[in-house]
Amino acid sequence: MAQYTFFTNPMSRGQIARWALHEVGADYATELVDWTNKPAGLTEANPLGKVPTLVHHHGGDHIHVVTETAAICHYLAEMHPERGLLPLPDEKADYFRYFFFAAGPVEQAVVSRAMGWSVDDPQKQGMLGYGSYERAMDTFDTLLTGRDFVCGDRFTMADVYVGSQVDWGLNFGSIPKRAVFEDYAARLRERTAYKEAKAIDMDLIAKAQANG
Amino acid sequence: MAQYTFFTNPMSRGQIARWALHEVGADYATELVDWTNKPAGLTEANPLGKVPTLVHHHGGDHIHVVTETAAICHYLAEMHPERGLLPLPDEKADYFRYFFFAAGPVEQAVVSRAMGWSVDDPQKQGMLGYGSYERAMDTFDTLLTGRDFVCGDRFTMADVYVGSQVDWGLNFGSIPKRAVFEDYAARLRERTAYKEAKAIDMDLIAKAQANG
Repeated sequence: MAQYTFFTNPMSRGQIARWALHEVGADYATELVDWTNKPAGLTEANPLGKVPTLVHHHGGDHIHVVTETAAICHYLAEMHPERGLLPLPDEKADYFRYFFFAAGPVEQAVVSRAMGWSVDDPQKQGMLGYGSYERAMDTFDTLLTGRDFVCGDRFTMADVYVGSQVDWGLNFGSIPKRAVFEDYAARLRERTAYKEAKAIDMDLIAKAQANG
Repeated sequence: MAQYTFFTNPMSRGQIARWALHEVGADYATELVDWTNKPAGLTEANPLGKVPTLVHHHGGDHIHVVTETAAICHYLAEMHPERGLLPLPDEKADYFRYFFFAAGPVEQAVVSRAMGWSVDDPQKQGMLGYGSYERAMDTFDTLLTGRDFVCGDRFTMADVYVGSQVDWGLNFGSIPKRAVFEDYAARLRERTAYKEAKAIDMDLIAKAQANG
């Protein structure tokens, strides 16, 4: 049995988790989840049936279940410290700051904009946390300016998640095409693990479309 | 000079970060930030001027800046491992899963509901990540059922952040009054650090109102 069971759908945020699995060189088995038909193994591990869901097998009944794409990425870095994707002591502030910024304000700003949701009242903007889409993007721009990766010169697991927000956002038009975002995404697309994971999901999508 | 400078406003999510500071017994100095008047130290450390912002002083010009309430909480646990608030190896899956669940889907569900934003279309709900407010609350309920704390029997830093979402939500009516949430919040309100931090912020709010 593989060390991890990875429940995913190729057209989901599972793509980000797959990239993380390849960054750590994980021994994993993919279980494809259809929106209408959830495998028993998934609902046993996670009654909510959400993808991506990662099951970490430790032998026998001893398993760990991880959901939330950002959590899966960081968890894999923790389980495979020899890959050097965890932050060094001096990198921890940026690593966790950017990770939570991308999982919270950026995600919220992008999704709300896609739904057509916004407010102009400054007091209500304060409640939003990200303020407004424009403010969230300007903040994201400021945070990424003057560095190659989240922690400076060195690629870490934070880049898999933060970078995927940028990469996806540029592809779907939900992040503005500014040089700082485009240059960062271009650096990430050079990662071997990114290419491996992307090829698998693109292939699965092509097969599903051919059968569909 | 204190080890940390804590830029906050007592009527903000800074209350959560202050609780975290007290949990680790941090040596910190508070700098109060008014919405209209941001201290120079804050805009130097964080051009965005957002609160809470934590500046960690290492001596001389060597500082780390952390924003995002969830990141501040976890960062403090990392900087003070002797406090035992980081997850043990067997607790890491739950710790990071719940932390990111509370910072992402829960935050988004609660804020969107406060704004009066929702969608009924299942495809659009899929884009939302949290689906719907009701689904997010049911998921949160399931995750907390059958355990005293995020990692089971043991309090960790994840409880400061996840628990604050519950505590605040119950106080503001943005989380439903279910026994699982109320019992969890009641356990957290017994923490000495919670009481210390809350007393400071309540006092600051009372003074501001007396002067206001």
